Formats: sequence, structure tokens, C-alpha cells
Amino acid sequence: MKVLITGGAGFLGQRLARELLARGELRNADGQLRPITELVLLDVVAAPGPDDARVRIEVGDIAERSVLERLIDDRTAASFHLAAIVSGQAESDFDLGMRINLDASRQLLDVCRMRGHRPRVVFTSSVAVYGGDLPDVVLDDTALNPQSSYGAQKAIAELLLNDYSRRGFVDGRVLRLPTISVRPGKPNAAASSFASGIIREPLNGEKAVCPVSGATRVWLLSPRKAVECLVAACQIDAAALGNRRTVNLPGVSVSVDQMIAALRELAGDAVAARIEWQAEDRVEKIVGGWPARWDTSRAAQLGLHGDASFKDIVRAFIDDELGGKIAQH
Amino acid sequence: MKVLITGGAGFLGQRLARELLARGELRNADGQLRPITELVLLDVVAAPGPDDARVRIEVGDIAERSVLERLIDDRTAASFHLAAIVSGQAESDFDLGMRINLDASRQLLDVCRMRGHRPRVVFTSSVAVYGGDLPDVVLDDTALNPQSSYGAQKAIAELLLNDYSRRGFVDGRVLRLPTISVRPGKPNAAASSFASGIIREPLNGEKAVCPVSGATRVWLLSPRKAVECLVAACQIDAAALGNRRTVNLPGVSVSVDQMIAALRELAGDAVAARIEWQAEDRVEKIVGGWPARWDTSRAAQLGLHGDASFKDIVRAFIDDELGGKIAQH
Repeated sequence: MKVLITGGAGFLGQRLARELLARGELRNADGQLRPITELVLLDVVAAPGPDDARVRIEVGDIAERSVLERLIDDRTAASFHLAAIVSGQAESDFDLGMRINLDASRQLLDVCRMRGHRPRVVFTSSVAVYGGDLPDVVLDDTALNPQSSYGAQKAIAELLLNDYSRRGFVDGRVLRLPTISVRPGKPNAAASSFASGIIREPLNGEKAVCPVSGATRVWLLSPRKAVECLVAACQIDAAALGNRRTVNLPGVSVSVDQMIAALRELAGDAVAARIEWQAEDRVEKIVGGWPARWDTSRAAQLGLHGDASFKDIVRAFIDDELGGKIAQH
Repeated sequence: MKVLITGGAGFLGQRLARELLARGELRNADGQLRPITELVLLDVVAAPGPDDARVRIEVGDIAERSVLERLIDDRTAASFHLAAIVSGQAESDFDLGMRINLDASRQLLDVCRMRGHRPRVVFTSSVAVYGGDLPDVVLDDTALNPQSSYGAQKAIAELLLNDYSRRGFVDGRVLRLPTISVRPGKPNAAASSFASGIIREPLNGEKAVCPVSGATRVWLLSPRKAVECLVAACQIDAAALGNRRTVNLPGVSVSVDQMIAALRELAGDAVAARIEWQAEDRVEKIVGGWPARWDTSRAAQLGLHGDASFKDIVRAFIDDELGGKIAQH
């Protein structure tokens, strides 16, 4: 079988690619494990790897239908659609957000539909689909009420994937990811970028700026567990999902103060002291509108599991990205 | 000011046009009443009227951006977007439904945005945005869970209008219309077409076929009240809506048996006997998924009112469309 990853040059796409290659096979719609013979990594820049004979690196604009038509064929059993314009950038560049978060998602569904073999499609969505007056505990089917263009675009993509699945055009599933933390690399334009930065930068010996108050609660998932969930979600039997194709992934709910306490416990006072506070209204407003308490029992029933604690998340980052070493200088 | 009605040749567009011309003015964003100097009626066929110097009849494909760019300019204070592909047809012709219910709605919002003066935009949406396991009473912010492509497309248009409004590109409002009954004219491809047909055809001396069981509950609004609500909604102060741009209009909740009892009471046994029963699974499935109980207190607070009873609805149809006469032959 052939597998496509959009956003294949991104850090999550790269990790997912490595995981899929290591497994070497995926469960198909007929319930059988089939070898992955070709893994296509599509992005606007060339993916740096992985170096593997099964990998095909493609550069292209995912909002161009011809690009998707070239890369999705009747051997494509599954597409993981990770490409996105993050929340901060979708707010500052409305047209770009619409083009990538909405148009490209729709094109991908529609090209899959045209192929006619009902391929599996896995979308990532976001807690940003919620907002406004929320119930105490958020469920998979709590009302969508996005307060950002990014959230609106993701909510629309969810609705499209659900309808394309209901009609039998694709066999889709959408995972609403908690904020991924700890992301490696550089800060990005996502409003939630600080949720990685305040851990990553201090562990790398650098200063970090926290734009929200210590009481702000966030809902977090490690990259390691996110990738495990993506692979598991792709293999869920369609009958177990029915017409409810959207699943909230389990996260760890912590305050920023608790995040810093975990960092201090694992890495010491000197590392935790590298965090500076500088309130940013725009970020506080976006992040403060996201819910912090969830009922993710449906994810658990479907075999999708998160991290045990935030300390585990920080430990996984130190192991996976820093080779176990913390900068103490 | 200039006002645009899309779907201007349709029965609701025609009634709305007559109402706007009779009033002659609309409350603007600044709270002042302004004369309507031009009323543009756009549709795929030429609107039959009204015959009035202020009316400009335009034929064009609403999904073509150039058509909207030609008709919406910086004098356009309000656009009523009524053009739609109905539920049954959007299910049988997926691409057409996407083009008109989604693409055209988005183009309209986007052309308004490009004009830069934040014009008012009134969309009509539908109870078809709901479905699945519903709460006992449906609220404006009950979770969207469309079970038809029509419902999905309307839900997406709602999300777009809300985001375009939040960003200040337009001053939008969406009314979720109950099923409009009694519609004049011929049956259409809407799954709810019977909710007019079982009253209209018998009153016209013709047989009607009812495709759902007598216990099926529907949620109904007369064309007269629908038009009043559209005009009122356009004039609501933006501050009263805040970021919640979608409002469920009040309907009358009745069973099909109760509808027929009202018809019998007003028109007699011979008229009511013109209804034949012929179950149609496809229709029963779509209509059965729509909710029947609602809390529309927000609509009332905003000054949007429905009919007092189904008998009132039938009486209004007899008065407005039949000149007070019932075919007894």
C-alpha cells in the first residue's frame, strides 16, 4: 500500500514517517495488515528524510489540486493530513489560512473521492474549534464555537470529512489534538507556542518568555503519544466510529505554574529560572478561550491513549530530543 | 441604500422583495432608517417582479465571483442570501450542493469583505445542521451534527459567516429557519416538501402523498413570519448579537397528524381525505433526524417572532395564496 503524509517536512510528519517505516505495515480497511511499499512526504519544502527506499519526497503546494491528483492514486490506502497554517498566522493572514486549512483539506478529500476506492484519511484538528461559554467538561460532541479563523477553518474541515465519510467517499477520521508539547525546534506563530518554549528553551540553556499567567491551564500531549494516536486512529475499524468521525485525544491538563514546577523538579532551579514573564493580551485571549477539562472516554474505548503526567512529557522530550542531557551552564 | 437578494426569483425572495419595497427603508448600521433606493434580485432565472422602479432584476450564477463583484458595491448596505440547493437535491447532486450552498456563500462573504464597508449580510440556515443524539430541547448553541450534505454545507456557511463577522469583514446574521409551511407552488426536492404539500394540494383540490408517518413531528414557520423575521434580523444592532451570529427562529412544533387535524377543522373532511400515505424511507430518515423541541427565547429577545399555531399558518396560506377560497370539488 501507498501512504501519503502532508506536512511531511514538519516535525510531526517526520516523526510519523519514522514510526510508519519502523512498523512497516498498516491495517487496511479489510482488517488485514499490509506492507507499506511507498511513503510519500509532501510539503512546501523538501522533507529532510527519512533516508529509506520506501520514501518519496515531494515538494508542492497542497492547495493545488493537480499536486494532490499526482500523488494520490488507487494504491493510496491512507493519507495523513498534517499540513496547516497555525493559529497565530491564520489570524494575521486570513487568505493563507483559508487556502491551506480549508481549501487544501477539501481538495484532499475530493481527490480521494475521485479515486473511488474509499481510502482512509486522517485529519488533525484542534481544541481551537471550541470557545465561548463551555460546559464544565468538554465531550467529543460539545458544540463547536471557534473564536479564531484557525478554529473556524478546522471546524469546517471536520464537517467536510464527516460528510465525505458519511457518503462513503472516504473512510475518514479526525483527531482533535491537545497542544503538542514539547515540540522540538524553534518557536512558531501558534498562540500555544509558549507551551513548548517554556520547557524547551530553558532545557537548551536559553531564556524563554511566557506570555500568559501562571494560572492559565493548558491541555497537552507529547509528540510521541500524538504519533502513536495517529497510527492507531488510521487503523480503527470504520464500524467502531460510525458517523462520529471526530475524536478528542486525551491530554494532560496542567497550569503553566504546574508545568514550571515539573521542569524545576526534573532540571533544577537554575533551569526553571530561565523563564521570563511578559504578558501578551492577544495570546492570553486565544489560549484562555480553550477548554481545560475533557471527557475523553471515547478515545480510550477506541484505543487512543495519552501521557500519564506532564513530568512524563518532559522526560520524553529530554530522552527523545536532548539525548538525555540538560544544559546546566 | 442598495439591497441585494440572492434567490430573488424564489417564492421567499419574491415575498421579501415586496415587503422591503412596501416598507421602503431599512435601519442601517448607524441605527438610522435609510430609504432603499435600489433592490437587486439575483437568481439563475429572471425574477418575475415586482414591478417597481427601484427593482433591478439580474440573472447570473451566484457561484461565479464576477457576478457578485458586479452586483455588490460600496452602496450595498445589506444582502439577503436565500439562494440554495435544497436538501434532497444536495444529497443527489453533491457537487452542485457544494457549489451553491458552500462556495457561493463564501464568495458572497468575501466580495462583501473586499468592499471594506462591513455591509450587513443575512443568511438563511436550517434545522438540518442538527442530528444524531440530540438534547431534549435544542438551543442556538446545541452542537451541530448534520446528517446530510445540505446540513453540512449550511453548518459550514454558518461558521464562515460567524468568522467573517468576528473579524469585522461583514456584519452578518444567520437565521435557522424552521421548515417553511405552507409554501405556494409545486413540490420541490427538499425532504420537507411534504410539510407544505399535504396542506397545499388538498386545498387546491388535488391529491397529496405523505411520505412520513402521522407521528412524525415537524417544526414549522409560515412564509409571512419568515419574511418578517428576515427584515427584523437585518436591522438588529450588531452589539445585541455579539459573537453569536446564529439564531434559531421560533416555529410551531406539530405532528403530521396534528397538521391534518387542523386542515380538517378549517377545510372539512373531504379536503383532508385527499391525503394518501406512502412511506418513503429516505425522507423519513432525513426528517426523523431533525429535532422537534426548541428553546427560542434568544430569538424572542432579539425581536424575532413566529406563528401562534398551525391553524394560523393554514389560515394565512388560505388568505395570502388562495384569496380566501378552498377548492371543495
